[in-house]
Amino acid sequence: MKYNTLNAEIIKELENILGSKNIMLDEEKIENYSHDETPKEFAHMPEVVVTPTDAKQVSEIMKLANKHLIPVTPRAAGSGLSGGAIPIYGGILLSMEKLNKVIETDYENMMIVVEPGLVTNEINRLVEDKGLFFAGYPMSLLSCCIGGNIAENAGGGKAIKYGVTGQYVMGLEVVLPTGEIVELGGKNVKDVTGYDLKSLIIGSEGTLGVVTKAIIKLSPKPKYATDLLVLFEDVNSAIKIVPIIISKGGIVPTSIEFMDKLSVHTTCDYLNEHLPYQKAGAMLLIEVDGTREDIVEADAETIGELCLENGAIEVYVADNHTTQERVWNVRRNIAEAFMVYSPEQSLEDIVVPIANIPLLMPEIEKISAKYGIKMPTYGHAGDGNLHTTLVKNPDMTMEEWFETEDKVLKELYEVVYSLGGKLSGEHGIGIKRRDYLKNHVSETELMLMKKIKRAFDPNNIMNPGKIFSL
Amino acid sequence: MKYNTLNAEIIKELENILGSKNIMLDEEKIENYSHDETPKEFAHMPEVVVTPTDAKQVSEIMKLANKHLIPVTPRAAGSGLSGGAIPIYGGILLSMEKLNKVIETDYENMMIVVEPGLVTNEINRLVEDKGLFFAGYPMSLLSCCIGGNIAENAGGGKAIKYGVTGQYVMGLEVVLPTGEIVELGGKNVKDVTGYDLKSLIIGSEGTLGVVTKAIIKLSPKPKYATDLLVLFEDVNSAIKIVPIIISKGGIVPTSIEFMDKLSVHTTCDYLNEHLPYQKAGAMLLIEVDGTREDIVEADAETIGELCLENGAIEVYVADNHTTQERVWNVRRNIAEAFMVYSPEQSLEDIVVPIANIPLLMPEIEKISAKYGIKMPTYGHAGDGNLHTTLVKNPDMTMEEWFETEDKVLKELYEVVYSLGGKLSGEHGIGIKRRDYLKNHVSETELMLMKKIKRAFDPNNIMNPGKIFSL
Repeated sequence: MKYNTLNAEIIKELENILGSKNIMLDEEKIENYSHDETPKEFAHMPEVVVTPTDAKQVSEIMKLANKHLIPVTPRAAGSGLSGGAIPIYGGILLSMEKLNKVIETDYENMMIVVEPGLVTNEINRLVEDKGLFFAGYPMSLLSCCIGGNIAENAGGGKAIKYGVTGQYVMGLEVVLPTGEIVELGGKNVKDVTGYDLKSLIIGSEGTLGVVTKAIIKLSPKPKYATDLLVLFEDVNSAIKIVPIIISKGGIVPTSIEFMDKLSVHTTCDYLNEHLPYQKAGAMLLIEVDGTREDIVEADAETIGELCLENGAIEVYVADNHTTQERVWNVRRNIAEAFMVYSPEQSLEDIVVPIANIPLLMPEIEKISAKYGIKMPTYGHAGDGNLHTTLVKNPDMTMEEWFETEDKVLKELYEVVYSLGGKLSGEHGIGIKRRDYLKNHVSETELMLMKKIKRAFDPNNIMNPGKIFSL
Repeated sequence: MKYNTLNAEIIKELENILGSKNIMLDEEKIENYSHDETPKEFAHMPEVVVTPTDAKQVSEIMKLANKHLIPVTPRAAGSGLSGGAIPIYGGILLSMEKLNKVIETDYENMMIVVEPGLVTNEINRLVEDKGLFFAGYPMSLLSCCIGGNIAENAGGGKAIKYGVTGQYVMGLEVVLPTGEIVELGGKNVKDVTGYDLKSLIIGSEGTLGVVTKAIIKLSPKPKYATDLLVLFEDVNSAIKIVPIIISKGGIVPTSIEFMDKLSVHTTCDYLNEHLPYQKAGAMLLIEVDGTREDIVEADAETIGELCLENGAIEVYVADNHTTQERVWNVRRNIAEAFMVYSPEQSLEDIVVPIANIPLLMPEIEKISAKYGIKMPTYGHAGDGNLHTTLVKNPDMTMEEWFETEDKVLKELYEVVYSLGGKLSGEHGIGIKRRDYLKNHVSETELMLMKKIKRAFDPNNIMNPGKIFSL
């Protein structure tokens, strides 16, 4: 695609739409908008950052950009992990930071209507006293925004019980690449009136339109939670417990987090954690929650018993805040623990059918050994979504690292697809995984995606170069 | 659209693809495929009925039809309520009756892989002894097929707790209108690898492709259930209880079925039911289920108390099979009770935000009075999906009835949309509601739907004339 660059006339038009206080051109100011939380080598400067305050302004910006063939990249918190908010072709960076209001709290329908720039946790804070919460939040809820959650269809550690963001998005106001404003879905809990365009927008990484308003469903907030830290000799016995808990135990845990041997050992070492992790070949962190304390306790007990009956070495129950913090601390500090080794890392987001995790793990070990880099693997065993992390070998030059990273990712993805898996479970494709996607998605599926992209965005100005190249 | 009709050459080609035993041309035999459960005035004869036995055959049929511009209408059980399976332009009726196998039961991943012609309840029957079930089934599960459930994104009475069909569809094999076979999704619980094409197919009423295989997620089957039949003086107090149960009680019931005064009184009369329904202006039938008897009982008790504290006249608890059958009998016999009055009925499927049900009900009464027809309204209060039923006044001629029906539907839909509602919650648009859809869906949304249709089906041969006209 050939795009135009901004000129004085277009900037003048942007000023007419937004007022000069909503336009940033100063290099120093806009540098911050050149990256998200993807490694810095993916960064790219926008030409201008605009901060619209309503959907009408977004619509006018899109019409202008469409007319002049200027690429537009939407951005909320900029906490993405696949480069979705990076303006790789320059152009207009559309920051949602001023579209950050709660428009309506509707307790009768148990929904909240918000703008995309709202920090996700604000929803939970606001509705807490009514005994409600937004169950689709990702783990980064303190810093991410709801707009980004929708763009990526973010998941999190509780997807096994509560599902992902998309399940709680009831309605969207979307500005199309051509400037039309369209309302999709609504406050109806069921709706089969025409094609499900709302679900198509969710997870489309800002390539089909800009979300300017979202109706989010609220759920009863669990009042009690208990965590079990369970040590297993090997991956196989750890993973085999998942369907047993659900079908035999009749319990759907809130989360079943998985850590491989390398993650457990390195992190426990780093934290000086005195758990008897030396024997453990894998660890699960299982949480149950609910509205009644006795039931949560009983569920935790059942799970503990099922684990011990099925090969667990040891089960630790954390039923108070202090011990819960301690066990989650191990999970939360994995990335940090490997930072000591090298800050150059590639955080992956592969997903496989849960039963195939034990087949995947030895393959990861083989790739790791072959290329001489550490590849700790941890993530959400309840849904097969694993954050294998490539950690640079400190002996490598940066050039060797990038070369190795590319080869490792190619081999890793080959294995993942051979096991029925996919590139990304919750972080998205963006720019980080774009060039790997086309090796794995079928020609027909890619052709359909491209046709849909063209139907929404005939001039390919809306977050171009993400997911696939047109 | 101008379509071609079948000729000897095309029939010969169909025979080459399918063998003659999978082709029906005999008028008497194919008459059965001219209608579904939509009123008979919508019926239309196909030219030929074909019964493919694998996806390859379906693909060859689609290529042939696409080449010769012959419309193709897919059909599973033919139990649809909006005419989705009616071949309104004749052509090829693609019956899924021989694609009815279970391909795989995968208990490690808690999924089942099935063909579209499988009767939905077969899934539950097969996996019952593992303590599992398919939670997205609709109320007609004994006769409907999974292919139709997916085509319509069928809901049901338990959507408030378990959601609808689409939530449990993990993967699809789809034959496109142009004949390509594409696999969408898979056995991954989370997946954000590219656009969510799977969700676009679900609920697209067979207009974007033919589902030839589906991966369905299984859930732990609840072991206990209790029903509460709750009488209220008026609709308002009945509906106000819904968010109270969920947010204050912290309980998500399995279902909250609603019956208006007319439905309750007529059906209780018809059944000689001795409930003190005379005082009732509205009735709720609330079910709770779970894996532990004590918890189910406690939840039912909490709900009963909340109902009585918030204006219920009376609460009946049905905690055994006999009394449960008795209370559900009232709900199940509504349509039957009005058959006595007239068999000419239009079963609607409107959906509104639940908090707006009390605003909708007096409007329905006004329309009913204005046109002199009965309009009993019942359905799923937990999700705002109401099956208002237009019952012909026996004094009307058929001509007057059709004229009245059209006027009533127009007014009803106007009211529904003014309350933020939609045409259909679970039955689909099909042909029955097609000409009303365009009055309510925005021009932009309709334009996007049409563009997507053209992207998948450039010659508009795949179930044409459903949802919208191109």
